[in-house]
Amino acid sequence: MRRVAVVGVGLTKFGENWDHSFRDLITDAGIHALADANMSGADIDALYGGTMAAGRLIGQEHITALIADFMGLNPIPATRVEAACASGGVALRTGYMAVASGIHDHVVVGGVEKMTDVSSGEVASALGGAGDQEWELFMGATFPSLYALMARRHMHEYGTTEEQMAQVAVKNHYNAARNKYAQYQKEITLETVMKSKVISSPLKVFDCSPITDGAAVAILVPLEQARKYTDTPIEIVASAQASDKLSLHSRESITRLDATIIAAKKAYAQAKVEPKDIDVAEVHDCFTIAELMAIEDLGFCRKGEGGKMTAQGETALNAKISVNTSGGLKGCGHPVGATGVKQIAEIVWQLRGQAGDRQVKGAEVGLTHNVGGSGATCVVNILKRAN
Amino acid sequence: MRRVAVVGVGLTKFGENWDHSFRDLITDAGIHALADANMSGADIDALYGGTMAAGRLIGQEHITALIADFMGLNPIPATRVEAACASGGVALRTGYMAVASGIHDHVVVGGVEKMTDVSSGEVASALGGAGDQEWELFMGATFPSLYALMARRHMHEYGTTEEQMAQVAVKNHYNAARNKYAQYQKEITLETVMKSKVISSPLKVFDCSPITDGAAVAILVPLEQARKYTDTPIEIVASAQASDKLSLHSRESITRLDATIIAAKKAYAQAKVEPKDIDVAEVHDCFTIAELMAIEDLGFCRKGEGGKMTAQGETALNAKISVNTSGGLKGCGHPVGATGVKQIAEIVWQLRGQAGDRQVKGAEVGLTHNVGGSGATCVVNILKRAN
Repeated sequence: MRRVAVVGVGLTKFGENWDHSFRDLITDAGIHALADANMSGADIDALYGGTMAAGRLIGQEHITALIADFMGLNPIPATRVEAACASGGVALRTGYMAVASGIHDHVVVGGVEKMTDVSSGEVASALGGAGDQEWELFMGATFPSLYALMARRHMHEYGTTEEQMAQVAVKNHYNAARNKYAQYQKEITLETVMKSKVISSPLKVFDCSPITDGAAVAILVPLEQARKYTDTPIEIVASAQASDKLSLHSRESITRLDATIIAAKKAYAQAKVEPKDIDVAEVHDCFTIAELMAIEDLGFCRKGEGGKMTAQGETALNAKISVNTSGGLKGCGHPVGATGVKQIAEIVWQLRGQAGDRQVKGAEVGLTHNVGGSGATCVVNILKRAN
Repeated sequence: MRRVAVVGVGLTKFGENWDHSFRDLITDAGIHALADANMSGADIDALYGGTMAAGRLIGQEHITALIADFMGLNPIPATRVEAACASGGVALRTGYMAVASGIHDHVVVGGVEKMTDVSSGEVASALGGAGDQEWELFMGATFPSLYALMARRHMHEYGTTEEQMAQVAVKNHYNAARNKYAQYQKEITLETVMKSKVISSPLKVFDCSPITDGAAVAILVPLEQARKYTDTPIEIVASAQASDKLSLHSRESITRLDATIIAAKKAYAQAKVEPKDIDVAEVHDCFTIAELMAIEDLGFCRKGEGGKMTAQGETALNAKISVNTSGGLKGCGHPVGATGVKQIAEIVWQLRGQAGDRQVKGAEVGLTHNVGGSGATCVVNILKRAN
């Protein structure tokens, strides 16, 4: 297996991009990533693309053929992968495998979602496709209500409070205010979160990530070739994926995600690092409770102590471990198929020292954590500056 | 790169399976494939699944997490790939790459589509997602009309006749009548096709593949391990994929599919065989004109002579080259995500000598050809009996 490096990344501005279509978004991010890697489209051997619900949101399947077409990449193989909100992470991992195996040299990985062309009800229905339709969504559950069940149980088992969850939103908005790509570039207070409208108790609107348009692209090459394209290659030292039961009622516990625990364990072993070695992490905070469970399941604190760790400021920028410096899904926005690739872009910028006002000082090891649905898919990647 | 063999395949009956859900179908095919490979679920290291439009047809995305769950395969990585009607073929190729690279040993590849739970109008709309929505489908084109354009131009350039196209349907129904998995198990006459209702001139209803429920599963292992599981391993000696412009108006010609030509060229080179070496082929006859273009683009005859070759019976069972012995998409049915994997199952049975009344005598080399949309994605695989 070959070692793999990221040599270019590109993002669109995340937000309600009413003046940009799906194909505009991914092409824009692609152009930025190619420029960042000092490459042209002719250098690319294969394309992997993550999108969750383009069929329902814009009436378009077959989206990597479309992307290859509009990025001028034909006739290379172009493959869409999908795992709900982990589509970007799974696309990244599939592209990583293609390079690591020696099958392809230069791979472009894209993630994209165009969510604001339909009503919010239609978006909620489309996102419901990430859970178990027959057993959960058709019965009336929504994604906020599934995560509300996890939050309520976490409060019951571990004494987690609504204020502790709210601190996740406050921290992530603080970081997003320092990220020009973020959907929400302003800070909020604990009071803003606590007084916001209840969506599914105990989750309030400021506990929830928003509906977002956006795209992200990363370019992967064998590490041995990386310095042809960049002075600061960032190596993917681990990439692991696991799956779990689709519906909450089938799981042993709903206060942890076994897919996260299993993928993280594999990733740490592959990278030969421990949780304490991670300087900066992008974790899947689709709801604030999800970030608390993530930092526990990833081993950044003991089970049940995610709320306490957050309230004590240990996950803030340049604290014990900087979590969601991009603003996370909550502050930066959550174009579902793009999120897993955006996480990679943020970690690459952090490890290159290009994160500006939100730079983690001396960041050397970064982690991304991307979850599909309520936890049935999880991808964990670990990245390092290549020496 | 390791050599890769298929050691087990399984299908459901194709058809209008109103009493079987999406998860029933894929689980049923999976159980048959595992039994065929003398394996249990615990032997499997990774899952790749192809489905085109489950989001629109059954409200369910995240389908490989669902499949892993219902087949009892957690926590292995489970990845959906999608390329419209080539989803199954791309899933197969991605699984092939996972085994060839040494990343995974035992990979299950599934294809599935549940199409009859919604109205035919909704199915037509969902299938439209395979083309370019903004430039073709939103403007009123349908898939039959796109292929009708190709047919009309093929008639103009090469003198192809409606009767020659109709012969594809007659041949494929003849084969389907000998396949217990096929949706249509009865023979038809040229007159039946020629007198059938016009869908989009010159294509009549019997020139079109049907709407179908079904699933197909194949199990791949390194060739060196294959004899632990079967006495008749079938090696995948080539797997190639190419992409082309999404919309017809962007292409240089609409009487050939460049993605087929490029993927076939790569596959023949990888397998070190020529078109004349192929004994049996499953090609993508979503419409009868598509089979004529396929046998030309794959090099079984010269460009423009597909109609003549078919009318002369050279693609019939045990003629010069046996094409679509399963009945093809036309006769066996076309559950879109399943088709690319079903083609593999048919070739495996042919090369094992297990194809019963439709057995190609002495078949040693087989080919599958799976197309997405109107040709923006194509996957070509070549299989051989392992000696």
